[in-house]
Amino acid sequence: MSKTRRQTLAQKEYRQKMALKKRLERNYQEQAKKNGLKSFKRVAEYLPAELKGRQIRRGLIVAHLEIEPVIELMAQGKEFTVVSGLNSSSSLHLGHKLMFDVLLELQRLGGKLFIPVTNDEAYIDGKIESLAESKRVADEEIVKSIVAMGFKPSKTRVFIDTDYPEIYKLAMYLSKFLTVREVETVFGKEALRNPGQVFYRSVVQMAQILLPQLPEFGGPKPTLIPVGIDQHAYVLLARDVAKRLKMVPPSELVFKFQSSLRDPEKKMSGSKPNTAIYLKDDKKEIKRKIKKAYTGSVSIMEVHQQLGGIPEICSVFSLLNSQSEDDEQVKKIYQDYLKGKLSMDKLKRLVTKLIVGMAEEHQRKRKQVTEKQMNRFLLKKPLTSFIKY
Amino acid sequence: MSKTRRQTLAQKEYRQKMALKKRLERNYQEQAKKNGLKSFKRVAEYLPAELKGRQIRRGLIVAHLEIEPVIELMAQGKEFTVVSGLNSSSSLHLGHKLMFDVLLELQRLGGKLFIPVTNDEAYIDGKIESLAESKRVADEEIVKSIVAMGFKPSKTRVFIDTDYPEIYKLAMYLSKFLTVREVETVFGKEALRNPGQVFYRSVVQMAQILLPQLPEFGGPKPTLIPVGIDQHAYVLLARDVAKRLKMVPPSELVFKFQSSLRDPEKKMSGSKPNTAIYLKDDKKEIKRKIKKAYTGSVSIMEVHQQLGGIPEICSVFSLLNSQSEDDEQVKKIYQDYLKGKLSMDKLKRLVTKLIVGMAEEHQRKRKQVTEKQMNRFLLKKPLTSFIKY
Repeated sequence: MSKTRRQTLAQKEYRQKMALKKRLERNYQEQAKKNGLKSFKRVAEYLPAELKGRQIRRGLIVAHLEIEPVIELMAQGKEFTVVSGLNSSSSLHLGHKLMFDVLLELQRLGGKLFIPVTNDEAYIDGKIESLAESKRVADEEIVKSIVAMGFKPSKTRVFIDTDYPEIYKLAMYLSKFLTVREVETVFGKEALRNPGQVFYRSVVQMAQILLPQLPEFGGPKPTLIPVGIDQHAYVLLARDVAKRLKMVPPSELVFKFQSSLRDPEKKMSGSKPNTAIYLKDDKKEIKRKIKKAYTGSVSIMEVHQQLGGIPEICSVFSLLNSQSEDDEQVKKIYQDYLKGKLSMDKLKRLVTKLIVGMAEEHQRKRKQVTEKQMNRFLLKKPLTSFIKY
Repeated sequence: MSKTRRQTLAQKEYRQKMALKKRLERNYQEQAKKNGLKSFKRVAEYLPAELKGRQIRRGLIVAHLEIEPVIELMAQGKEFTVVSGLNSSSSLHLGHKLMFDVLLELQRLGGKLFIPVTNDEAYIDGKIESLAESKRVADEEIVKSIVAMGFKPSKTRVFIDTDYPEIYKLAMYLSKFLTVREVETVFGKEALRNPGQVFYRSVVQMAQILLPQLPEFGGPKPTLIPVGIDQHAYVLLARDVAKRLKMVPPSELVFKFQSSLRDPEKKMSGSKPNTAIYLKDDKKEIKRKIKKAYTGSVSIMEVHQQLGGIPEICSVFSLLNSQSEDDEQVKKIYQDYLKGKLSMDKLKRLVTKLIVGMAEEHQRKRKQVTEKQMNRFLLKKPLTSFIKY
């Protein structure tokens, strides 16, 4: 192929990448306006610096729903409540890490965390073969990692659904506060094929979100639910049910997904190993995955230098943006990237070093975690307030 | 009204009652042929006398499905397993008593009993106002009565669903073995309005039926499910699921309902106090209810004597038939009734005495039941076989 021909192709590639960037931006803007959500920008503007965590500074928090009561508690230095769960279908990857970083930041600001590990969900949705395997992942991969990440045991309550069947009692209680029809409207019949899916998606999830408002945990209170945008409908349903129960409708915080290594329009997924970097990946593996990752640069250096790059669609830059502690470095790299002054090789080396360092530290810490430490995080309180007479 | 006119009316009444008798018989015959059920008559013929309990001798057992493996264990004097639950929406009445008598008889013949008390079902179906009240009924009315009735604690395992949430873990596990579509086909959408109903009717009920076949209780085995005819569909679904799990499809034993005091075509119902005699009713109450009960005799004595009575549709005779220990007495009264030689006043006095005696004895025994005794019946074993790794 001639040089001109290659340059023409690279220019076409650039136009495609720009179109992708615009599509992504539009998508986020549309999602941030969905069903009562508000853009987080206005909130970020008036937040005092000490409440502005890394995720906010990096633009990873995109929208919210009635977050004001929670911020008020935060600003007063009072405890506030956060619920954020995950299913145990695969090893933890950097998508999970992003969420856990948000949680760590919220805990630093006074948040008491409830973390449901939904091994039942992983199983009934067929994301993992057996309940036994989903339980193993929950214990070995998730709870252990939570301890290693440095959460405070006194301010963190973790429960694996099938180890804490009290949650199902609460779900049964909640069943009278919504109908199957409502559930079908929110989730669609496709996601409700077996009886467990109907029960889980509606009232078990609801029970996880509303649990902290039971008398057992001090009664009704503002609660913050940090979620990826695809979970907004759950929160809306939970808010409706909360009102019917005379509880406080939970507040919502929407964060950006960690994007797939291969496609910025998709999220990193544990079930697609090539799209994800796992916390347990070794140096070689991480290097290999980042080397093949999708970037915001065209494939010919000259054209890249001439037109500049598009960091917003770059999966490698996105790792730097969500994981680097160094604001100045990220800003500098972003500018260089835009101007076409940054080679992808350099960026990939730099990000590989950052991620390998982080992963190795995590792995080192995980090895030291004891069963006793894990135990201190587990919620065991019986739920009886809605049954007692 | 002239005497002739009154007699004509009584003759018309008699024809109506005869039509009712035929309708009832036809109904039972049709039900007994439903979806694989077989009439119990053939089984009753070859059963040795020592296995023929009162309920069989009185014709209260009408049909079965693959009961042979259970009878074989019985005949060999080996233990066999029985599951039979009830919901805690009202005080126990004679309809429950009939079922408990069947269970006592099965226990006498070597049955190990599992008795789920489905307080969650009572609540989600709106048969009782709150989960708290359904739990109170479960403890105070049901478990206490089970102890008073003389079940053996070593051979009886009772669990109240919300006190034994392990059952929900098993239900979650079973969710992958059937679809919502199957559940809708069996129960109809009308019975599946809230998420708890979908989950309960399908997999919680299934979990109750299949529980004894878990490794925790010795693994797959023949299990007998005594039910009223309206629960046949549940058993069929459980048999399908059992096959998918490589468990033994449960056997079914269908007994006649204790009929309503007011209408032989309906069953005695705890939510309609005038149709039911509760085990806690006092003498005055029982007398009043039996006095007003529907009988198989026309209202004019002369015509009754002339045409005879119809004991098969008589709610008072039905109480005698299911509750009297005395075969000879029942036979004699049946014959006299048929021939019109029995006055309803006399029958009612006699049955009132029988039921009052039985109820008072039960009440006396209930008073002596201690919490410790109740505790010995409660199932507490954790269920982990399908989760462990």
